[in-house]
Amino acid sequence: MAEKIRVGILGYGNIGRGVELSVLQNQDMELIAVFTRRGPENISIVSKSAEVLHVDDIYKYKDLIDVLILCGGSATDLPQQGPKYASLFNCVDSFDTHARIPEYFNSVNEAAILSGKTAAISIGWDPGLFSMNRLMLEAVLPHGESYTFWGKGVSQGHSDAIRRVKGVKNAIQYTIPVESVVDRIRNGEQPVLTTGDKHLRECFVVAEEGADKTEIEESIKNMPNYFADYNTIVHFISEDELKKNHSRMPHGGCVIRSGDTGQHSENRHIVEFSLKLESNPEFTSSVLTAYARAVVRLNREGKTGALTIFDIPLSYISPRSSEELRKELL
Amino acid sequence: MAEKIRVGILGYGNIGRGVELSVLQNQDMELIAVFTRRGPENISIVSKSAEVLHVDDIYKYKDLIDVLILCGGSATDLPQQGPKYASLFNCVDSFDTHARIPEYFNSVNEAAILSGKTAAISIGWDPGLFSMNRLMLEAVLPHGESYTFWGKGVSQGHSDAIRRVKGVKNAIQYTIPVESVVDRIRNGEQPVLTTGDKHLRECFVVAEEGADKTEIEESIKNMPNYFADYNTIVHFISEDELKKNHSRMPHGGCVIRSGDTGQHSENRHIVEFSLKLESNPEFTSSVLTAYARAVVRLNREGKTGALTIFDIPLSYISPRSSEELRKELL
Repeated sequence: MAEKIRVGILGYGNIGRGVELSVLQNQDMELIAVFTRRGPENISIVSKSAEVLHVDDIYKYKDLIDVLILCGGSATDLPQQGPKYASLFNCVDSFDTHARIPEYFNSVNEAAILSGKTAAISIGWDPGLFSMNRLMLEAVLPHGESYTFWGKGVSQGHSDAIRRVKGVKNAIQYTIPVESVVDRIRNGEQPVLTTGDKHLRECFVVAEEGADKTEIEESIKNMPNYFADYNTIVHFISEDELKKNHSRMPHGGCVIRSGDTGQHSENRHIVEFSLKLESNPEFTSSVLTAYARAVVRLNREGKTGALTIFDIPLSYISPRSSEELRKELL
Repeated sequence: MAEKIRVGILGYGNIGRGVELSVLQNQDMELIAVFTRRGPENISIVSKSAEVLHVDDIYKYKDLIDVLILCGGSATDLPQQGPKYASLFNCVDSFDTHARIPEYFNSVNEAAILSGKTAAISIGWDPGLFSMNRLMLEAVLPHGESYTFWGKGVSQGHSDAIRRVKGVKNAIQYTIPVESVVDRIRNGEQPVLTTGDKHLRECFVVAEEGADKTEIEESIKNMPNYFADYNTIVHFISEDELKKNHSRMPHGGCVIRSGDTGQHSENRHIVEFSLKLESNPEFTSSVLTAYARAVVRLNREGKTGALTIFDIPLSYISPRSSEELRKELL
């Protein structure tokens, strides 16, 4: 057996922990170290042979790990960390602020080209596997419409927005696709839809004692951008209920392409890629881990700079040889 | 606008005609010529500016087309044509005899390496888009099981097998997934299944006058490999009914991966890629056309030899630039 791919993890939140567990599922990989900004002594990891180190020590691992998986957030961590660590390591991240991807790509690309490293950005399921399907299906069926639905799942951004409302102690928000709309598309209709037409927003809110619940509900429902354009449902529950019933992290969604072919557009085709995930962070982490394999291989072949999921042939994410893939999976 | 990709089509059956219609949907491509073994004067194509020529004239087009799409069958045409034309042109084909793919790949690869051309083999939906999903989902969720279902759709091989039964005048066979089994997998079960457990076979048979229908039905149901291991339903209908109700070519199916993550495999994920196609040949053709674009680009970049759908980054099949793809679809 070839030498194992040596993996480093930067950041040990839900994604970092998910990557650790995913590496344990992949026998051609081994976790070398978890790097953290917190005190390493406060972090207990699952892997027995890996170290936990302060991020200040990461430089010492320049030649000891083949790929660093960046597990920080897109708002403030990755815009700094992406270019910084691409100048030292092959990297993978899940940068998911869609509007800032071009800018982020350029900054990571510049650093990785200079260092001769390879960095896969915006890996996960959206951006990620959903993006692949949007591209693939648009290219195969140029006459058509693509639809992306998210959920049922927690939106961290919307949950945070509710928590900022006066009188709210805690809250969680689920984005839920409108099933009747999904069914219309699955049945071949091509409606023009806003994100608000496609989803409803269900909120579970813990109010502070004595707070005006009617006012809270109105504030949420009228919040511009976040809720005003959606069918929004607000439930008030206790802190105990929130902890007990809403602490898991399921998610999911689908990409549907509805398109036609034929001389007179007479034949309709519906293609759907869908996910039902019991743990959003663990699934995202599993995608990151598979693409960590690709990044190491591409770098060994001399392909440097920033890449997205669009640029990486699928054979690179599999531990199997090309011969085996052709024989077993094609 | 850049120069258009100049496309040639070899063979004008259902796939060849589908490719022609698909090229018309792609504004960066133009059809130059259809090559046929039949008399060109007997073939009427849709595209006004393209020529119809005997295949003996194909050599004259060596420098006039950028990619040749091979639209022959996998049984006898492609094993000859694949290596032959890869020595003259960039090629794409839909070779779908799964068991012979490794051998076919090698013969096309050898020819294409020698000629400096690029050939994408086994492009379509299975092999093709289904294969991509099998690879991708196995790599992302290594702890799990993959399931492929085909149908509802016509199996040409099974229809032919029925037509060889004594007393049968004509027949068509539909492969149909067993919905209850699909639902079990969608709900998180991981059953061990044979192809026969997953599908049933519905046959519409036109008997010759005076033929023994009971005998025909028994012969079909007991036919080894084709029907013996399946739940098989046989209907006798008239030739008129067969023509009227069974001459369209719908197909479809799905690939489902059921896998788990977490320290104790506590989180289950179900990922599904599904197709509902009103025209199997036209959809297959649309995939071939998108990959024709990729083959031309890869060849211009110096990537020669045989490739499969596993080897080609998705960005190559889209007419959009990488910048635009990152901005719009990632």
